[in-house]
Amino acid sequence: MRLATLLGPDLKQLLKDDPDQARLLLDELHAEDIADLVSELEPDEAAKLLEHLPAEDAAPIFERLEEHEQEELVEQMAPESVALIASEMEPDDRADLFSALPEDVGDELMRTLERVDPEAAQDVRDIEKYADTAAGHLMTTKFVSVPSKATVADALAAVRAFVKDNEESPLYNVYVLDNDRLFGIISLRELVANEPGDRVDALSLTNIISAPPDMDQEEVARCMAKYDLAAMPVIDSAGDLLGIITIDDIIDVLTQEQTEDVQRIGGVEPLDVPYFQTSFLEFIKKRGIWLVVLFGEEFFTQTALRFYDPVFEAIKGASYYVPLLISTGGNSGSQSSTLVIRGLAIGEIKPRDWWRILVREAGMGLVLGLMLGSIGFLRVLMYKDQHIPFALTVAGTLVGIVMTGCTVGSMMPLILKRFGVDPATSSTPFIASLVDVLGIIIFVHVAKIIMADVILAGGVH
Amino acid sequence: MRLATLLGPDLKQLLKDDPDQARLLLDELHAEDIADLVSELEPDEAAKLLEHLPAEDAAPIFERLEEHEQEELVEQMAPESVALIASEMEPDDRADLFSALPEDVGDELMRTLERVDPEAAQDVRDIEKYADTAAGHLMTTKFVSVPSKATVADALAAVRAFVKDNEESPLYNVYVLDNDRLFGIISLRELVANEPGDRVDALSLTNIISAPPDMDQEEVARCMAKYDLAAMPVIDSAGDLLGIITIDDIIDVLTQEQTEDVQRIGGVEPLDVPYFQTSFLEFIKKRGIWLVVLFGEEFFTQTALRFYDPVFEAIKGASYYVPLLISTGGNSGSQSSTLVIRGLAIGEIKPRDWWRILVREAGMGLVLGLMLGSIGFLRVLMYKDQHIPFALTVAGTLVGIVMTGCTVGSMMPLILKRFGVDPATSSTPFIASLVDVLGIIIFVHVAKIIMADVILAGGVH
Repeated sequence: MRLATLLGPDLKQLLKDDPDQARLLLDELHAEDIADLVSELEPDEAAKLLEHLPAEDAAPIFERLEEHEQEELVEQMAPESVALIASEMEPDDRADLFSALPEDVGDELMRTLERVDPEAAQDVRDIEKYADTAAGHLMTTKFVSVPSKATVADALAAVRAFVKDNEESPLYNVYVLDNDRLFGIISLRELVANEPGDRVDALSLTNIISAPPDMDQEEVARCMAKYDLAAMPVIDSAGDLLGIITIDDIIDVLTQEQTEDVQRIGGVEPLDVPYFQTSFLEFIKKRGIWLVVLFGEEFFTQTALRFYDPVFEAIKGASYYVPLLISTGGNSGSQSSTLVIRGLAIGEIKPRDWWRILVREAGMGLVLGLMLGSIGFLRVLMYKDQHIPFALTVAGTLVGIVMTGCTVGSMMPLILKRFGVDPATSSTPFIASLVDVLGIIIFVHVAKIIMADVILAGGVH
Repeated sequence: MRLATLLGPDLKQLLKDDPDQARLLLDELHAEDIADLVSELEPDEAAKLLEHLPAEDAAPIFERLEEHEQEELVEQMAPESVALIASEMEPDDRADLFSALPEDVGDELMRTLERVDPEAAQDVRDIEKYADTAAGHLMTTKFVSVPSKATVADALAAVRAFVKDNEESPLYNVYVLDNDRLFGIISLRELVANEPGDRVDALSLTNIISAPPDMDQEEVARCMAKYDLAAMPVIDSAGDLLGIITIDDIIDVLTQEQTEDVQRIGGVEPLDVPYFQTSFLEFIKKRGIWLVVLFGEEFFTQTALRFYDPVFEAIKGASYYVPLLISTGGNSGSQSSTLVIRGLAIGEIKPRDWWRILVREAGMGLVLGLMLGSIGFLRVLMYKDQHIPFALTVAGTLVGIVMTGCTVGSMMPLILKRFGVDPATSSTPFIASLVDVLGIIIFVHVAKIIMADVILAGGVH
């Protein structure tokens, strides 16, 4: 890593001036570091470099670039060069490239790829049949398989042949097939540890944990994490092995899903590219839409306050407590909603637990509300011009509001999930604005009970 | 997976009634699924079962239990039995067990372990030297190494010996040592693909990506994800190989770190155990502390509104717009802070980028503010009793408040990071309450400029 950082500027210059010399240097670096350097080049320089490299050297670099960088480069390069590189890419990365490209560019590239490497083109079509976030789209079709009557020696020979052709592909297991059906899995370490003449079907693990091709990538990730799998087979309903999902892709999935969740929780439509690569206009769209929705929602606070004007006129200074009270409801609601969102995301909480959660959160809201209510009560009385009835009103409101925050905040993600919406959409600002309006109504009604005489004296009924 | 779910209740009964019979069944299941079943037993039943199993069968189950479950079980079991199981556990999982135990229980277990397996006890002490979240604490000391003059055949023999003793340990690479110094890494697939007589030093990868033992686990995770590593060596400053970190642990780290981030963003002190295992009292503590802090912060809104009372008296109905206006600032601030928090967490944003972010967020705040300001302006004028000066005041306030939200929200995580505090501590409720007070001040000052005549008529200067 340090090497790349030190060499960065010099290597960049060298890449421009003397690509042949640079290639020797590139041999010493990890493809990931080279991709970092290529990212820093101007698109036309980067395109020139990748076109200059043999396709099998360019592919591991190209497939490590961000999708938006790939898209830029494809526009700069001859379709022929891109097709050659694509044919050398890992099948899943190749399919991702096609997903990232605008339709017309992708179609043109596909026509070229069909000419250059019909098999690679077929792989893309096979993977593209599945949704972007499905196991079938995440899998690679490059794996080592042997028939069930093969020996350990046969399997090792298959591994040797695979490694020769696929320098970069990860390889943890050999898949034992009975015709096309997946019969068992044998790890490389088991192959090494056993006798060459042993039959693989006797050694292989047959209690297989696999994914159907339409399983959502988040569930795939959770399953592989749970069972500590380095690779998971994807099999169709007939039991045929379609491909494998490797752990390196799962880490990317986890990171991406979590980024989306955090952005939703913060009230932003998930971004497609990193912060600095997101255009100003894109940000305005992704943030603006939620700000406008929340603004509309929040306008009801003004409507409610206006509606209850006589109450606030009767209790001098009461309206100044509104932001304090309602934001406390929003805070407790934020806590509950993030706890439930995260619990759902990692599978600790299941939608069927809703009743237990509701009871728990209502109880917690009561205790937390009483705690804050006591503090509020004492704090209000510190003002010489305030009296016990108003201090009690503030305290009572806090109890009601915190309980509302906890229950609404915890139930909203579950309700959204029930209707097929991402639970993280119940963002903290969304919960807060929902609870704000309820908070005002609670405040007024608590006041009407505790301070009936004052309000009546103000002429309100 | 389905098997375990179906068998669940029956197997549970069988485990209680006839552990010997159950053992035969257990052979068919993944240790992870058995651990799930054991989790559902009462602690005393689970303890009985684990004591009944041979330690090498119990260890893979025990190490997959949650920390709090392990703690409960240790209290139910004889120290001798626990020590035997601990001696069969993976070194990193064993060290985690000791970290999870209360000090006195841990000390007693350590004395027993020293008697049963002094080497395993030493491993724990070696790992415990490092902070809980450091690479040294995450690593396992079980790996296969060969001297640099070894041949491929020697390395394969070492692998065979390792697999025989360590059925459960992951094995991706063989480490080539020059004395104790890490010289190179050769993957199992390379070993299989090459000739038995070849020397490993000629074949091994020497451009090694490694971690020092004090590297934070989040950085380790990021590095392994970036380079798609299944295992990463941990080496000390002399270049000696101390252990390796495997990818399955990294997924747990990523999930745990992200859970903590999400909880912080929601204004909850990170929980140590899952939602349903967290006790009611623990929740009150972890949530209450932040609710009280935020309540204290939020009280300044009341102070500010009281302070500006004459202005609100002069402009009839203005105070009813306060929640709407300040929460809009909070919403834009939440967006900015979560974007920056997440950007920092995945390394897309570096603290040195602060100036670029500030400029960008201020610009975005201006555009978003103008957008909401226009909507607000029109909305206010829909009331027959409102006039253009007040509508302009609302619009101007929205511009100022959204800009403030964006800049404060984006800078706060960077400032916290600068002072060594987790950036996610700048939770959305924290940002919101900060921006709320500023919002009131902005509102009043915009009003003083645009509606000077009205305010003067009210007798304010």
